[in-house]
Amino acid sequence: MSRILLLTDFGTRDGYPAVMKGVIWSIAPQAEVADLAHDIPPQDVLAAALTLGRAAPYFPAGTVFVAVVDPGVGTSRRPLAARLGAHLFAAPDNGLLTVVLQKAERSGAPVELVHLDRPGYWLPQVSRTFHGRDIFAPVAAHLANGAALTELGTPIADPIRLRLPEARRTRQGWQGEVIHIDHFGNLATNLGREHLPPAGEVEIRIRGERIAGVAEAFGEKPAGSLTALIDSAGALSIAVVNGSAAERLHAGVGEVVEMRWK
Amino acid sequence: MSRILLLTDFGTRDGYPAVMKGVIWSIAPQAEVADLAHDIPPQDVLAAALTLGRAAPYFPAGTVFVAVVDPGVGTSRRPLAARLGAHLFAAPDNGLLTVVLQKAERSGAPVELVHLDRPGYWLPQVSRTFHGRDIFAPVAAHLANGAALTELGTPIADPIRLRLPEARRTRQGWQGEVIHIDHFGNLATNLGREHLPPAGEVEIRIRGERIAGVAEAFGEKPAGSLTALIDSAGALSIAVVNGSAAERLHAGVGEVVEMRWK
Amino acid sequence: MSRILLLTDFGTRDGYPAVMKGVIWSIAPQAEVADLAHDIPPQDVLAAALTLGRAAPYFPAGTVFVAVVDPGVGTSRRPLAARLGAHLFAAPDNGLLTVVLQKAERSGAPVELVHLDRPGYWLPQVSRTFHGRDIFAPVAAHLANGAALTELGTPIADPIRLRLPEARRTRQGWQGEVIHIDHFGNLATNLGREHLPPAGEVEIRIRGERIAGVAEAFGEKPAGSLTALIDSAGALSIAVVNGSAAERLHAGVGEVVEMRWK
Repeated sequence: MSRILLLTDFGTRDGYPAVMKGVIWSIAPQAEVADLAHDIPPQDVLAAALTLGRAAPYFPAGTVFVAVVDPGVGTSRRPLAARLGAHLFAAPDNGLLTVVLQKAERSGAPVELVHLDRPGYWLPQVSRTFHGRDIFAPVAAHLANGAALTELGTPIADPIRLRLPEARRTRQGWQGEVIHIDHFGNLATNLGREHLPPAGEVEIRIRGERIAGVAEAFGEKPAGSLTALIDSAGALSIAVVNGSAAERLHAGVGEVVEMRWK
Repeated sequence: MSRILLLTDFGTRDGYPAVMKGVIWSIAPQAEVADLAHDIPPQDVLAAALTLGRAAPYFPAGTVFVAVVDPGVGTSRRPLAARLGAHLFAAPDNGLLTVVLQKAERSGAPVELVHLDRPGYWLPQVSRTFHGRDIFAPVAAHLANGAALTELGTPIADPIRLRLPEARRTRQGWQGEVIHIDHFGNLATNLGREHLPPAGEVEIRIRGERIAGVAEAFGEKPAGSLTALIDSAGALSIAVVNGSAAERLHAGVGEVVEMRWK
Repeated sequence: MSRILLLTDFGTRDGYPAVMKGVIWSIAPQAEVADLAHDIPPQDVLAAALTLGRAAPYFPAGTVFVAVVDPGVGTSRRPLAARLGAHLFAAPDNGLLTVVLQKAERSGAPVELVHLDRPGYWLPQVSRTFHGRDIFAPVAAHLANGAALTELGTPIADPIRLRLPEARRTRQGWQGEVIHIDHFGNLATNLGREHLPPAGEVEIRIRGERIAGVAEAFGEKPAGSLTALIDSAGALSIAVVNGSAAERLHAGVGEVVEMRWK
């Protein structure tokens, strides 16, 4: 059985993700199709890349991910498919695969990328505004049916990559930034477990607030407290217990976060 | 394998669509059930009819659609089921099937409608506030199990139809209106490819703005530009590149749109 | 075939529910996984308990429910699994199972509860912030694979229970309160069909408004009318026809509702 996961910024209200499922089932009737997320902020390729990077490792080998956040749809940007480690992907060439690609490369896993340039595997009519339906869904269905990547397109080695913000060493510790705000208003940063000192305490600074230490669980402090902890993806995250740190701190993606070693 | 798609204005928060799935699986354990959309604006039968009309053609033959936007639930409005072309439908008789019905009739596809009047195919207890659970979900499950329409109800020929706004010819071209606003704030109109002049340029006018020409893709103009294009359903759509035309123009459904031939 | 339903306050945007599905499919590849709801208000255990209690009875025997609204994640609160009547559950021990547990007890159905204390059935690494992924999803997958409750944990008899607000008898009838506000803004109360007088009329009072009688269907009064009816779960519900009673009355959970017998 083959499973296809859909990640888009389409929302669900207009039925766009459902239409992709209809196209997939028309080509691969046995495919199981599920939703990764459809409420990525519109055109936010970085948010999609991070969400895909966090989720993909938890899926069985052979899972096909179709990720479509695609401000360049209908222009010269290439449609891609890829095998990265144990998973398959179809996505526009705009950096959406950056995180999963980087993880595969760093772990020495197989990396294979193709430019989807074989219209025989697409819908007969291709719009210039909805490649999720016309190109990526059909390609995912063919992958689920066992088509090889090289049937679907021409190998490439130069996919577009997003520049992910890097933490930098400071005299007192590390400086990073908020890279993702989740549903609860937790602020995930590009600092993580690997930036903690080998021994001793830390202080986290963000927007003038100072947080002493890194907690292990939300419930270690009383409701309403500002807290810092290592989240379920290993990232340093700023949270308000049973509340929203994004609201409390009026902080967005890009906000500077300092980790001072004591 | 039979697939059932659910379209409602129930939202997902209260578990109402999930309850419909539970009812379906209790009657048709093998049925695959997926979501078309559950965030249709409350009681907006027209939005549901348009969304259903856009999505249904992409699904395989035999797919069953259950569409419940139902302000008249529990009153004398009839519950219906239908075969329209290659698909099956269950919905209240309030115009929700207007678009799929019209498409089937215009293409000469099979059209068969029944008034669901056989309580033996419903849940044993029928509320007067949730026919999605008590009538339409069980009926869909029986359709998925292979029941004939005429087992489930009595043939009818007089379904309620919505009056869909029609474009009208003007001296300079066509006048239409906004009929749907999507998740991105794109304004879909009842003008389309078929209203473009056989040759020459057009100008689109909406709320005092003039847009020269019809673009092919969002990315043809810089981010923030107001643009007009033929969308993935063939409709003239007004958009802001990487933004929201609905917000920019403060335009809603019913807003007048002029296409002037040059 | 085994089906697993997910109920959380995670939202869908960050892919957290999808990650739970990936974990389940890695352990139980044949399991069908569907969503009950993911937009429970953050940390609102009562809303989740009520939603679960309303939905579960409509699912086939053997369905596994994973319910994770979990402000105490990573603290000493216990993770639980349960067999309650014909269904299986995995949830934190914070009262989330109160309603389904009470229903099973009152109907004399089987009740079996275990403290999940066998890490061999969890993910190898357990975070202290995402037990939905690390404990509850794997446990649900093992349940779907046929594991017995007693393999997964140690029997207990003292689950945490929420104190559900009880209606109280007054001289003129009953006094209750709003316990849930749904997607449409309908106000569900802890009064119900069982509080109606054996004969005669009633008047419903809420926030200074008086509603004469209990309607049978939304459509019995004109659009915009304030109405009271017995909803699809048997509860007295205050609604505005084609509108939102929550908005109209500025009423929230806990608002007092009086039913006066005439």
